[in-house]
Amino acid sequence: MKKFINSIDTLLDESLRGFSKAHADIIRFNPQPHFIQRIKPAQSGKVALISGGGSGHEPLHTGFVGSGMLDAACPGQIFTSPTPDQMLAAAQAVENGGGVLFIVKNYAGDVMNFEIAAEMLECPKATVLVSDDVSLPKTHSTGRRGVAGTLIVEKIVGAAAENGASLEACKALGNRVNQATASMGVALNSCTVPALGKPMFDLGDNEIEMGVGIHGEHGRETIDLISASEIVDRLATSINDELKPQEGQPALLHVNGLGATPLMELHLIYELASWFWEQRGVSICRSLIGNYTTSLDMAGCSITLSLLDEELMRLWDAPVHTAALRWGC
Amino acid sequence: MKKFINSIDTLLDESLRGFSKAHADIIRFNPQPHFIQRIKPAQSGKVALISGGGSGHEPLHTGFVGSGMLDAACPGQIFTSPTPDQMLAAAQAVENGGGVLFIVKNYAGDVMNFEIAAEMLECPKATVLVSDDVSLPKTHSTGRRGVAGTLIVEKIVGAAAENGASLEACKALGNRVNQATASMGVALNSCTVPALGKPMFDLGDNEIEMGVGIHGEHGRETIDLISASEIVDRLATSINDELKPQEGQPALLHVNGLGATPLMELHLIYELASWFWEQRGVSICRSLIGNYTTSLDMAGCSITLSLLDEELMRLWDAPVHTAALRWGC
Repeated sequence: MKKFINSIDTLLDESLRGFSKAHADIIRFNPQPHFIQRIKPAQSGKVALISGGGSGHEPLHTGFVGSGMLDAACPGQIFTSPTPDQMLAAAQAVENGGGVLFIVKNYAGDVMNFEIAAEMLECPKATVLVSDDVSLPKTHSTGRRGVAGTLIVEKIVGAAAENGASLEACKALGNRVNQATASMGVALNSCTVPALGKPMFDLGDNEIEMGVGIHGEHGRETIDLISASEIVDRLATSINDELKPQEGQPALLHVNGLGATPLMELHLIYELASWFWEQRGVSICRSLIGNYTTSLDMAGCSITLSLLDEELMRLWDAPVHTAALRWGC
Repeated sequence: MKKFINSIDTLLDESLRGFSKAHADIIRFNPQPHFIQRIKPAQSGKVALISGGGSGHEPLHTGFVGSGMLDAACPGQIFTSPTPDQMLAAAQAVENGGGVLFIVKNYAGDVMNFEIAAEMLECPKATVLVSDDVSLPKTHSTGRRGVAGTLIVEKIVGAAAENGASLEACKALGNRVNQATASMGVALNSCTVPALGKPMFDLGDNEIEMGVGIHGEHGRETIDLISASEIVDRLATSINDELKPQEGQPALLHVNGLGATPLMELHLIYELASWFWEQRGVSICRSLIGNYTTSLDMAGCSITLSLLDEELMRLWDAPVHTAALRWGC
């Protein structure tokens, strides 16, 4: 295993210290317990938005802390849920009279730990579960996973919270965005978790993994390498079958790199996916391309489509100032 | 070779079409000959800034076209210089009464082709050669290569041009930033050029390449894997020996991913590098971390230090609105 690390034990801390030093104008790192919080104080009464999850998906979630998006993020060890004491401390640090909304990717460990934290927290609180990964059936025993669509929920609800929406309204909005959002990923190669020291699963020289998650777990199926157009057709068809967009439907298309895929290829995937939906009368009026919800050094990408209306567009466009997303301010 | 492509022949075009569709509010793609130009018209008399080079380094340079930075970028085939007709057409499209400044990474093919274009161009013109890679000696036969420091030259000169600086002033400023900027890179693994279909050079399971360039060429030396602290110490020492910053010197620290390195590791490298210079009394007052000057899917990173003064800081902070760098507007 070749990585830029000193030791597995210090990797996360050294990385978070570097991140917080580089973005000291936006965020602050609380080392004990670990959380990242926004520096610019929110206006009194604003709903505090908190997310978190295992590390290794950067910039998700720490890179989305800042005005117009998250108030705090709780990073766990790599691909490992953060603990309730992190979420509780983060909530107590950023709660500002408007209650706390936890935005949680649907993974058993994250769900359980955020639930425990919510129970311990003595203020109005609510949770939005993100479950945008259509590679698993809706009837899957633990529900669908939350993947790259999570940042869309965080951005849109973040803008609403900044505009003074209530806890109840933020929760309803988060659920609405989650319902309107579907993602699916593909891996060309697995990722290497430092503590394991070898790829999480093996793929042959001519094999790819369809419907892959973001934790190096196996996907829906292993298939032989096919062309980019065929890959996009499969991913986009699964998404389209789920969302069933109408003719003229405005949508946000997000092509996300899983860590080791060149931007050049992500742009190509975007070209093919936008063409897929344009042919079906969908109006791709917003877009985001890049490494946002990564899986360490996995080669691969995911496609996310999020159906928009005028309100969602306005909230997507609203100013945001975080390490990884920044516009309008 | 596993990549998201349809065919090697169409990769660049499909990718540029996707890029331009996703960023249609900022740039426009001219398909014949290939160049990307800024949409928002520059004020009359503004110096037009044009860069370019082989593709495979995205977001460099196309992602830096927009207000406050480049007026146009000319992408060649992967790791291959663009041709003079591209630069000439781009220059004719964006020249606006202030003359044309070419910002060129110091590679023989790029230098020659930009020179030919400059000779053919019938308006005031000048060239800044970027040569920030200290892994080669200053006395190297073709001079030092231009690598990740290029974007710093483009950003700072871009801001000056936007503010109305003359062609002569922009050229002098570009040369000054180049002189004050030094970079060095390291690769954990080489990259795979699609047309070749295999890694450009082989490294053993325990080997890394110090002083690597951005075209998959071999670096200064192949060594056994060492810790992140030791890697940073070697890279930063070479840079520091070149720039010899004084106590109290303000500087921009740029940690650049070469394509396949997780952001988590880049943040760790930033932490170690900022500590290296803080110990030497250098004030790291600006920073940039991420994949900006990539080498397809190469695992590795580079460190760039750029010495600043008040004017350079102000120009770095000035508004920029491009696909890959965006702040203040």
